[in-house]
Amino acid sequence: MSEQTKFVLPEREIPEQWYNIVADMPNKPLPPLHPGTQQPIGPEALTPLFPMELIKQEVSQDPWVGIPEEVRDIYKLWRPTPLFRARQLEKALDTPAKIYYKYEGVSPAGSHKPNTAVAQAYYNKMEGVKRITTETGAGQWGSALAFACNLFGIDCEVYMVRISYEQKPYRKVMMNTWGAQVFSSPTNRTEAGRKILASDPDSPGSLGIAISEAVEVAATNDDAKYSLGSVLNHVLMHQTVIGLEALKQMEMAGDFPDIIVAPFGGGSNFAGISFPFLRYKLTEGKQIRAIAVEPTSCPKLTRGVFRYDFGDTVGMTPLLPMYTLGHTFVPAKIHAGGLRYHGAGVIVSQLLKDGIIEAQAIDQLETFEAGVTFARAEGVIPAPEANHGIAVAIREALQAKEEGKSKTILFNLCGHGNFDMSAYEAYFAGKLQRHELTQEEIDAAVALIDTPAIPA
Amino acid sequence: MSEQTKFVLPEREIPEQWYNIVADMPNKPLPPLHPGTQQPIGPEALTPLFPMELIKQEVSQDPWVGIPEEVRDIYKLWRPTPLFRARQLEKALDTPAKIYYKYEGVSPAGSHKPNTAVAQAYYNKMEGVKRITTETGAGQWGSALAFACNLFGIDCEVYMVRISYEQKPYRKVMMNTWGAQVFSSPTNRTEAGRKILASDPDSPGSLGIAISEAVEVAATNDDAKYSLGSVLNHVLMHQTVIGLEALKQMEMAGDFPDIIVAPFGGGSNFAGISFPFLRYKLTEGKQIRAIAVEPTSCPKLTRGVFRYDFGDTVGMTPLLPMYTLGHTFVPAKIHAGGLRYHGAGVIVSQLLKDGIIEAQAIDQLETFEAGVTFARAEGVIPAPEANHGIAVAIREALQAKEEGKSKTILFNLCGHGNFDMSAYEAYFAGKLQRHELTQEEIDAAVALIDTPAIPA
Repeated sequence: MSEQTKFVLPEREIPEQWYNIVADMPNKPLPPLHPGTQQPIGPEALTPLFPMELIKQEVSQDPWVGIPEEVRDIYKLWRPTPLFRARQLEKALDTPAKIYYKYEGVSPAGSHKPNTAVAQAYYNKMEGVKRITTETGAGQWGSALAFACNLFGIDCEVYMVRISYEQKPYRKVMMNTWGAQVFSSPTNRTEAGRKILASDPDSPGSLGIAISEAVEVAATNDDAKYSLGSVLNHVLMHQTVIGLEALKQMEMAGDFPDIIVAPFGGGSNFAGISFPFLRYKLTEGKQIRAIAVEPTSCPKLTRGVFRYDFGDTVGMTPLLPMYTLGHTFVPAKIHAGGLRYHGAGVIVSQLLKDGIIEAQAIDQLETFEAGVTFARAEGVIPAPEANHGIAVAIREALQAKEEGKSKTILFNLCGHGNFDMSAYEAYFAGKLQRHELTQEEIDAAVALIDTPAIPA
Repeated sequence: MSEQTKFVLPEREIPEQWYNIVADMPNKPLPPLHPGTQQPIGPEALTPLFPMELIKQEVSQDPWVGIPEEVRDIYKLWRPTPLFRARQLEKALDTPAKIYYKYEGVSPAGSHKPNTAVAQAYYNKMEGVKRITTETGAGQWGSALAFACNLFGIDCEVYMVRISYEQKPYRKVMMNTWGAQVFSSPTNRTEAGRKILASDPDSPGSLGIAISEAVEVAATNDDAKYSLGSVLNHVLMHQTVIGLEALKQMEMAGDFPDIIVAPFGGGSNFAGISFPFLRYKLTEGKQIRAIAVEPTSCPKLTRGVFRYDFGDTVGMTPLLPMYTLGHTFVPAKIHAGGLRYHGAGVIVSQLLKDGIIEAQAIDQLETFEAGVTFARAEGVIPAPEANHGIAVAIREALQAKEEGKSKTILFNLCGHGNFDMSAYEAYFAGKLQRHELTQEEIDAAVALIDTPAIPA
């Protein structure tokens, strides 16, 4: 065992290929359905929204996809990211567990999101796209895409969930600094937004609504395409640079994780850290637990249903086979805005269905307690989303202590909380609430789903 | 020449010694004087404020001082920091100059300040100190000390300049997250604060006033010591880890700087990046220009006088030989709060006096323009303080273009601007003003100085 705290890779170790877990899945994801006809659709149905190269990646069955040199050149601004052994946290918890974390907050936008934003902006640029629309929750994704579009000279239009727009005003300024336009969603700029506002003028917004708006603008304007920060297969694949680096860094540490933990919104963070390790579970039968952590206020993985559903609220996207609480579900206004999404990505849903991964739901009060424990031990103040992963890593480390067993735990610290200080302020002031949904609330949400069931 | 963008060192390359430039200075700094008797004082006069080990460092003439292993262990959380070749910025400026920057924003507090905060907290801990008081401008120093004190279990009390307290509320929450108490200075908690408030109830505060408050609390409480984030010799020395790493990284790049640029408040940032390179100018006659960049609103290096002055506003500290605008000078409310200080550190003042280094003053409008140019090219949005260095690096790069010469420019990107988005917002909204002082204003400020002249 090395005595090191931080494991850094040289620039040349930035991965040259992304890993596509679909190639190794025992059950491949089911095909998407057309939102109108409810019949399986092919790649061509996605051309109004995405450039062809990303569509190819979306349906690819190849295990490895090359990373363009131009994208790797930009990755060099912050990649490879460091992997830390959390020695101070281990000491604070007095645990025999070894805790490691990969830190993605060193990117200019402060999270893992630029890993896919840069790739997406690049492929759009190559195909002549002039404008990209997107949604953002907490602002991490919007910031990342603003950063990436600026580098390639593409206009960027961000629909930001209203509650986050109000809670995190400085995220907007950050996006503006990189030249993007930002709107508080729901807006009056789209049919989708106007429809929501007509029925609920005080709507706090949701990722599903903001997606409807961004998709509508892209679908109805020839010069624009749409970009999504999570959920889709190609997005999850781009994030595997995280886990591919972490594999090498764990090797430097002379260790290998028994448990991998990451927060779960749509799946990109979780996929990024875990898929390159799960490859060894799928291909060699290696024992690894991978735990996706969602908020109790939005528990699609632990309490939702597995069926076809829309990716957006209004119902404009293809129908995807996913764990969902229903596309009209509006989660409570928790501070982890990036996790306020009704559904889970297709690949992660299938992996959960097949028992290859696990999920846990955790209340925001416990996540902030974990975040403060982490900050006081390891320094970095984490984003509220990241606190979900930390909370479960701490649970597992304390479990190891109780059992008197050593375990190796790896989690992804997906971003810093520098733009989330109002959330910490509210936590310290005792203003944050628990958000446990009753079974009646879950039943009522699920009962509203009128989309097709998964064929047996 | 390497084609690399980012130069990273392994953990073992964290320096084992700090560099003390005093050993190599042709003219040593003059001794401090007692604030009452105006006679030279010895180290023992500083014991009410600082632990003995730091006092020894303050007066040390040794070229190298060992870094304790406990301090290096904490440095591992973010050090070695990366050095970048600013290829995108070079392209944006279309300059033949090669531009490099060392990035200190990767520390948990987001700036270079933890380099000395951790060392100071450590020595205080070793000597049994239970509580440390300090001042902070923009909040970078206060955050760093809060972070460091938390790691060693020491209480931390921060007097934050009122204008920054109001402009940057989230810095306070950050300090609270690491367990520190934060007060808006001037306060009613001290004699010094009450005196200022009596004469100007709306005082925006200044670093000088906040120092008076923090020093008073430490001097009048046996369990407390005081900690300063810049100006003093030992603080500047702790920051040399920046330049010592940069020396090795420039070697990796196969290059050596012709020009080194850094923002200037009290001197710690400038000293950190430049002193290890200036060693070769002092000992081997190597040609290097080192440029300290101050705001036009607080131009002590370019327009102040070289004489004995107090470090604080009220006149509680020893008298130090420095370039100063007078200890009662209150700078305009610019957003680079860390540069709103009336005087310069003793070592830097002597080096400037002796023509070994240079200084330039720059208006905040030009600094924000430079910051946005940098952010759009290189990604990271810099702190307003850092923008001062960037602005002069850009000036020099454009000068090189005009002259058709290649030059190698190195600057220290001392921190990110994640807590300074309100400043960028004001800049984009056209709300920032120029702050050029008239000669009458300078004369009036300097005329108020009643402290001793430097002996011929």
